[in-house]
Amino acid sequence: MRFTSEQRLDDEVLQREFTLGEVPGILWTPTSAPTPCPLILLGHPGGLPGMYPRLVDRARSCAAHGFASATLELPGSGDRAPLAVTGQARAEVREVLASGRPVHDELIDRLILPLVETAAPEWQQALDALLALPDVGGPVGYSGGVISIGIRLAVAEPRIVAAGLFAGSFVPRAMIEEARLVTIPLHVLLQWDDEGNDRQRALELFDAFGSTQKTLLANLGGHTGVPPFAGEDAARFFIRHLRG
Amino acid sequence: MRFTSEQRLDDEVLQREFTLGEVPGILWTPTSAPTPCPLILLGHPGGLPGMYPRLVDRARSCAAHGFASATLELPGSGDRAPLAVTGQARAEVREVLASGRPVHDELIDRLILPLVETAAPEWQQALDALLALPDVGGPVGYSGGVISIGIRLAVAEPRIVAAGLFAGSFVPRAMIEEARLVTIPLHVLLQWDDEGNDRQRALELFDAFGSTQKTLLANLGGHTGVPPFAGEDAARFFIRHLRG
Repeated sequence: MRFTSEQRLDDEVLQREFTLGEVPGILWTPTSAPTPCPLILLGHPGGLPGMYPRLVDRARSCAAHGFASATLELPGSGDRAPLAVTGQARAEVREVLASGRPVHDELIDRLILPLVETAAPEWQQALDALLALPDVGGPVGYSGGVISIGIRLAVAEPRIVAAGLFAGSFVPRAMIEEARLVTIPLHVLLQWDDEGNDRQRALELFDAFGSTQKTLLANLGGHTGVPPFAGEDAARFFIRHLRG
Repeated sequence: MRFTSEQRLDDEVLQREFTLGEVPGILWTPTSAPTPCPLILLGHPGGLPGMYPRLVDRARSCAAHGFASATLELPGSGDRAPLAVTGQARAEVREVLASGRPVHDELIDRLILPLVETAAPEWQQALDALLALPDVGGPVGYSGGVISIGIRLAVAEPRIVAAGLFAGSFVPRAMIEEARLVTIPLHVLLQWDDEGNDRQRALELFDAFGSTQKTLLANLGGHTGVPPFAGEDAARFFIRHLRG
């Protein structure tokens, strides 16, 4: 992990951009919280430059509660080299959605599964590097989408002890099966009228999670219409589970 | 409305039992909040003596946030005269549940609809009397079950501006239609494995509500397994909507 820039935001958050091999990422730490800070990994749909304003808002909220937060560019997104297989699938999904046809499982698999296979080990490597820093510690939470990456990390990465997931992306059948293996506490956010999300499948996924502590928070509105209080509820979830 | 007893609980809550005609009820007011206090009506499945411990917990939580709260015995429950029609239906429901058969719509209608028709005007009369007291004011919230009574009040009673409903009772088809007329902000609590509740119908009901601000909070567990933080979330909902 190599830091490439360092910047203070409002004197309250230290933002450090880094690269992990070829993968760009950003780390945010509160400037005045006791260290080491528990860490929340901020998931997103890919494309750090475009997602930056929303990510930095979430990072500020994390810092306000004494949490460090970090994110990583997804394979094939932003400034990273295209991922041939998902690039092709993404173009097909756009075409299918534009035509009003349903997105079939086979296409969802081609879109999401290679992303999960490639991204999850990268986030785990980032975790190795981040947790080696003096001001960042465990336990670790995962927050946001892509929900399938969150599922894989929740199953494969024992350092992640709680996940706040956003039920807003296509979910392969295989990931619903994998969700049965998840046992950590979950807080799942669902936008009831999410235009990019199959509500029934989101409910089926929530049902499938093996966790004994799981909460579904569904709000009226589309994909980007999450009400402000939902962010506060998610923060309280992480406070409950990342602070002893 | 005639007060029949008055008692301070822990110096923080004043509890007054009353009768409204033949109907017993209880009013709780905070002893140290600015008056008049916004009022939350506490719904319950019937039987004040048995429900008292849980109701007084909810009343204490209301008072801690500066809210008055009040409840009323349901028709046919507790010390009130039996309601012939629902008494018969209740016996049949017990029998059907014990035999493991599904509870059909016709029986749900016979159990719930007369209760709604009788109870809702009583709660509205109680509201008239409660709001005439110097220390109780508007706006008013409705909290809890029987959800069908909450739906009727949310539609029929303009003084109720927000409702926190518990999706834990049988819901007649007609009430799902009536839910489309509800426009006030809603916070709906669903226990994912509620043994007395059809999850699919609860989701259908949530979908039917006409409100543009509605939140579904679903937690793993049975009917009485609501986690403590869900109560805090409901309190925050009422703080958002009953305080300007």
